[in-house]
Amino acid sequence: MIVLGVDPGTATTGYGVVARGRDGAVSLLECGVIRTTPRSDLARRVAEIYEGIEEVLTRRTPEIVAVEGIFYSRNARTAMVLGHARGAVLLAAAQRELPVAEYSPAEVKHAIVGSGRATKEQIQFMVQRLLRLKAPPQPADAADAVAIALCHCYALAAARLATLAQNDRVGAAARHRPAAAGGAA
Amino acid sequence: MIVLGVDPGTATTGYGVVARGRDGAVSLLECGVIRTTPRSDLARRVAEIYEGIEEVLTRRTPEIVAVEGIFYSRNARTAMVLGHARGAVLLAAAQRELPVAEYSPAEVKHAIVGSGRATKEQIQFMVQRLLRLKAPPQPADAADAVAIALCHCYALAAARLATLAQNDRVGAAARHRPAAAGGAA
Repeated sequence: MIVLGVDPGTATTGYGVVARGRDGAVSLLECGVIRTTPRSDLARRVAEIYEGIEEVLTRRTPEIVAVEGIFYSRNARTAMVLGHARGAVLLAAAQRELPVAEYSPAEVKHAIVGSGRATKEQIQFMVQRLLRLKAPPQPADAADAVAIALCHCYALAAARLATLAQNDRVGAAARHRPAAAGGAA
Repeated sequence: MIVLGVDPGTATTGYGVVARGRDGAVSLLECGVIRTTPRSDLARRVAEIYEGIEEVLTRRTPEIVAVEGIFYSRNARTAMVLGHARGAVLLAAAQRELPVAEYSPAEVKHAIVGSGRATKEQIQFMVQRLLRLKAPPQPADAADAVAIALCHCYALAAARLATLAQNDRVGAAARHRPAAAGGAA
């Protein structure tokens, strides 16, 4: 399972590609940033973000794209400009029919550090540790993108555990039910 | 000169294609709306907007794309969602290396009606009149897109007039300048 995490921005878009093995082990395949040309207009920047994400999708063929959801409030102008960058990422995913998973900043922090209020340094420290890296991914936007990809891996693992636990309860209930009462599956 | 005006929205994106002749006369080539699939996710919708604009660009080969600028304030969430739709339009333009012109709602109203505070009905009435149509373009999002395209045509005409007036003043000044004082262009 290969997951592309993206932290969109009109100046710098971070990306991180993480692989999750059948045993649940995660490893970093690649991370970096797409820097758009300073002083170029927004349309050109959006195109550069789209092309950059396209290249990563071609190179790594992830099965899913994870991005930060539309949750936090900023001023409307900043939010709209950011929406352009995010739109370019979603478009690239949709054109390859890749599902998009969205996580709030608090969900990402909770998944990586165990607290929705973790600092940027705590996130970087845990990303480095979880992926057994010699140093935290640089720059910070790349680390954030890796954190989003990891969040998706852990959300998947949690969902799988919940399903197993559910099946286990159902199985236990079936074992304890008297044979004569059977029939309703 | 063919101008594509676009009024982006995640549910409905209006577009209007206007031709401006050498004599300054404007005519409507086509207008309509791109409606995205209800209940589909934002990534899919962004892709539908992009594909719709792509089709119009292929069919009408405009020289420029005019859109509403990022000027007005809404709540941040609405603004960010709208940014996705706008990003899809800008991307389609940038990929064909088409210039993008941006106008504020007040500029559009002022160009079409002569007042920055015109109502939607006044805009529709003037769009119909300026383009000699039997009825105002429908639906309203298409009419808005046509108004943005017309605004660009008139902004161009105004800029040309200003240049002519400027040249005229320069010419008049040159004619009045004593021949002995010449030399500094």
